[in-house]
Amino acid sequence: MSESVHQHRAFKWRAGAMREEADRLAVEEPLEIRLGGRRFTLTMRTPGHDDELAAGFLMAEGFVNTRGELGEIRRLRDSKGAPDPNAIDVILNVPAVGLRERLQRNFVVSSSCGVCGKTSIEALERRIAPITSIATIATPALLRLPAMMREVQQVFAATGGLHAAALFALESPIEPALIVLREDVGRHNAVDKVVGFALARDLVPLSRHALMVSGRLSFEIVQKAASAGVPILSAVSAPSSLAVELADDLGMTLVGFLRESNFNVYTHPERIVPQV
Amino acid sequence: MSESVHQHRAFKWRAGAMREEADRLAVEEPLEIRLGGRRFTLTMRTPGHDDELAAGFLMAEGFVNTRGELGEIRRLRDSKGAPDPNAIDVILNVPAVGLRERLQRNFVVSSSCGVCGKTSIEALERRIAPITSIATIATPALLRLPAMMREVQQVFAATGGLHAAALFALESPIEPALIVLREDVGRHNAVDKVVGFALARDLVPLSRHALMVSGRLSFEIVQKAASAGVPILSAVSAPSSLAVELADDLGMTLVGFLRESNFNVYTHPERIVPQV
Repeated sequence: MSESVHQHRAFKWRAGAMREEADRLAVEEPLEIRLGGRRFTLTMRTPGHDDELAAGFLMAEGFVNTRGELGEIRRLRDSKGAPDPNAIDVILNVPAVGLRERLQRNFVVSSSCGVCGKTSIEALERRIAPITSIATIATPALLRLPAMMREVQQVFAATGGLHAAALFALESPIEPALIVLREDVGRHNAVDKVVGFALARDLVPLSRHALMVSGRLSFEIVQKAASAGVPILSAVSAPSSLAVELADDLGMTLVGFLRESNFNVYTHPERIVPQV
Repeated sequence: MSESVHQHRAFKWRAGAMREEADRLAVEEPLEIRLGGRRFTLTMRTPGHDDELAAGFLMAEGFVNTRGELGEIRRLRDSKGAPDPNAIDVILNVPAVGLRERLQRNFVVSSSCGVCGKTSIEALERRIAPITSIATIATPALLRLPAMMREVQQVFAATGGLHAAALFALESPIEPALIVLREDVGRHNAVDKVVGFALARDLVPLSRHALMVSGRLSFEIVQKAASAGVPILSAVSAPSSLAVELADDLGMTLVGFLRESNFNVYTHPERIVPQV
C-alpha cells in the first residue's frame, strides 16, 4: 500500500445494519519546510513528492522563479541520523541580498493583505507578471480534461479523501496531454506539487499549459497558478469572488464547474476556442 | 444580495453553445485578526459573522476557554474613522500572565508539530481535554442531519462555492435540533464561526451536541471540534488518517460519508445507537 493511504477499521451503516470493515484513508501528516536550516513554514499534507511541494510553495510565495534558483532540497535527519519523513531543508541558489529582498517583499504582501482584498490583489499584481500567453484550448478538448484526470487518479478512488491537481500541455489546442497529476489532502498542496514538478523540469513559466484542480477555486489557487504563468485554470466546482477578480486582473482564463458536457468561463474567454 | 454573494458575468457552455449570463460567486476576502491591537493572524474568509470566526479561532488555538475570557471584539477603523470591513481586534479577558502562558503553549504546539504527526497529536492531547460525554444519537436521526443542513443552506445553493458547518443539540438522541449553520469559502472558517457562536452563548463545552461539516474531515477540523468538546463529528465526505487518529485518541465519535441512507463510523461507535 502506498504511503499516501492507511488502512483503518470502520463501522459501515448499509441497508439498515452496521458492519465492521477495513477502510482506506488518505494520509495526512505535517511537513516542516526549512529555508537554509531555519524554520520557514509548516503545512499539513499527504506524504509523497515533498520536494515538489516545497519548490512549488516557494515559487508561489515569490522566493524562486527559475529551476536554477531552487538549489538543493534535502531531508532533515533526526538525532540518530535517520531521515525525518516530515521535515525538509531547502538551500536556495539566490544571492543573500536577493533573498533578503524577497523575504521583505513577501512580508509586504502578507502585512498589507489584512487591510482589504484590493490592497492584497494590487500587491500581488506588482509581484506576479501579467499572463500574456496566446495559448488556446478547443471546447471538446476542455470537456475531456476531467476524464483524463480521473484516469490517473488512483488514491481518490481508494479513499475519497484527496484533492488533485493536473497539468496539461497545450502544444495543440485540440489534443491536450496530461503531464503530471498530484494528489493531497490539501488542494493548495496538490497545486504546489504540480508547480514544483514543473519547476524542477524547467517548464516554468507554464505559458502553453492548462492546470485543472478538483473541488473549488480559491484566491490562493489562482495566486499559485499565476506565479507559475499558467494561462488557463479550470476546476470541477465553483470559484470564489476573489479568485475571479485576481484571474481577471492578471489575464488568466478561469473555468469553473467543468463537467462532462458543461463548463462556465469567468474570465478571459478568448482562450477557449471552437474545435478547429 | 447578501455580502457573501457577488454577481459576475460568466460565459456558460451548455448543449454545445456558449452563452453569457450573470453568475453568483461566494465572496472571499482576507480578515485580519488582532489580539489587543497586535497583528495575530490573517485568514481568507467569506465576510459575515467575523466576531464568531475570531472567537472560534481563538478557542481552537487554546487562547480562550469560556465566554468570560473572550472579552470584547471590535472592528478596527481606517484613517478616516470608518469601520474596516476586513480587520477586527479582540481584547481578551485573560490575566497577562495567563495569556503569556497560552501564547507559549500555542508556540510549543506549532514548533513541535513539524517533527512528526505523533508529537503534534501528543502536544494537542495535553492541551485538549478528553471527550467523556455520554451523548448519543440514533441512526435514523444521524441519517437526517444532511437534509436538515441543506434546508438552511442558502448561499451554497446560489454559488456552489461555500463549505458549511452546522451544530445540532442532542437533548434527545432521536430528535436532534439544528442550532446554527455557518457557511464560508474555508471549511475551517465555517467551523470557527459555529464554535464562536456557541462560545458567545456560553454553550461550550458542547457536550450534548453534534457538529456536521460539508466536504472532508481533516486534522484541523477534529482539533477545532475537540477544543469545543464536541462528542460527535460528522461529514459528507472522507476523513484523513490524522483526523481519525486524533478523534480516536480524544474519545470523539467520527462519522464520514454521511449521506441519505449510509454512513461510516471511524471511531467510538458507542455513541451511535439504534432507534430507541
